[in-house]
Amino acid sequence: MNELEIKEIIRQTLSPRRFQHVSGVVDAADTLAHRYGVDVEKARLAAWIHDYAREWPVDKWYETAKQRGIDPTYLEVAEMLHGPIAASMMPEVFGIEDEEIADAVRYHTSGRVGMTPLEKVVCLADYIEAGREYPAVHELRKQAEVDLDLALASAFDNTIRFLLDKKQPIFPVTILARNELWRALKDRRTL
Amino acid sequence: MNELEIKEIIRQTLSPRRFQHVSGVVDAADTLAHRYGVDVEKARLAAWIHDYAREWPVDKWYETAKQRGIDPTYLEVAEMLHGPIAASMMPEVFGIEDEEIADAVRYHTSGRVGMTPLEKVVCLADYIEAGREYPAVHELRKQAEVDLDLALASAFDNTIRFLLDKKQPIFPVTILARNELWRALKDRRTL
Repeated sequence: MNELEIKEIIRQTLSPRRFQHVSGVVDAADTLAHRYGVDVEKARLAAWIHDYAREWPVDKWYETAKQRGIDPTYLEVAEMLHGPIAASMMPEVFGIEDEEIADAVRYHTSGRVGMTPLEKVVCLADYIEAGREYPAVHELRKQAEVDLDLALASAFDNTIRFLLDKKQPIFPVTILARNELWRALKDRRTL
Repeated sequence: MNELEIKEIIRQTLSPRRFQHVSGVVDAADTLAHRYGVDVEKARLAAWIHDYAREWPVDKWYETAKQRGIDPTYLEVAEMLHGPIAASMMPEVFGIEDEEIADAVRYHTSGRVGMTPLEKVVCLADYIEAGREYPAVHELRKQAEVDLDLALASAFDNTIRFLLDKKQPIFPVTILARNELWRALKDRRTL
């Protein structure tokens, strides 16, 4: 399936508001991929697909996760399930079997330890696409122009602060991802 | 070994400043144990022992953790190792084989999912003993008078915020512990 066909499935699957967001993520992922030497076509496809299962009811996430043997760690926070679910459906829905694209879709909300540049690009694009509006987004966009790791680590920390303020569950894998990014950033500075 | 003998070993092991802190934790744990119906003797012993390995150099923590087969999760944040190490040394150093006391020592910094009341008391006492001085401590002491879970969840979140500000590694088990506490607090309120 080519990008245009995928885009049409996404348009039919999502609400107009969500489709607008996804289009923004595709644009942002395109820009970031060019900037950081990442495969632009893969970044665009992952961005189109990343929220395919985002608007399902929670029950359907849990059921599908169980049926498809999604890593049970992801049950800790329901909102984390839509990425792994979309990744697992790519072959049947979009005819795509590319594991790099699948991982970028799978980990786009949670992050993980050992993220590839493609995964980082899609994850960060989701945070800073043009339609996003929250206090930290302007600073994140500036950081995204100069340092992919710094911008992503800051984006994760911003989300963690938001969840702390709301007393909502935090996903432990995101903690490991941001620990690794800050560690790498420190090591880089002290080299 | 009785409490007085344990106290003397701790006095000889730790710096005067740390010994003062530990004495404060014993007092706070005693108060909390009475308040929340926890075995006072066990709470006091765990409090005396909890920082037994706190002043070791990092290398010795890592070596000992490897020798004793400490859960490798704890290697993520070096400061987390002193609890599990002290717990594993209790039989030989203090002649204590009580698993409830050992768990209170083991998890006093990290917390964990499914903490016992004894574990919560020792963990919280470490946060609020009289010698502690940091912006959130007054609020935590107030919460500790009325709700053990609320105080502990707030204490964990305060630490997580501190680590975010410092861009330092956060321990994922603590995240799972605070997720569980906030979930329980919410469930209690909506019942």
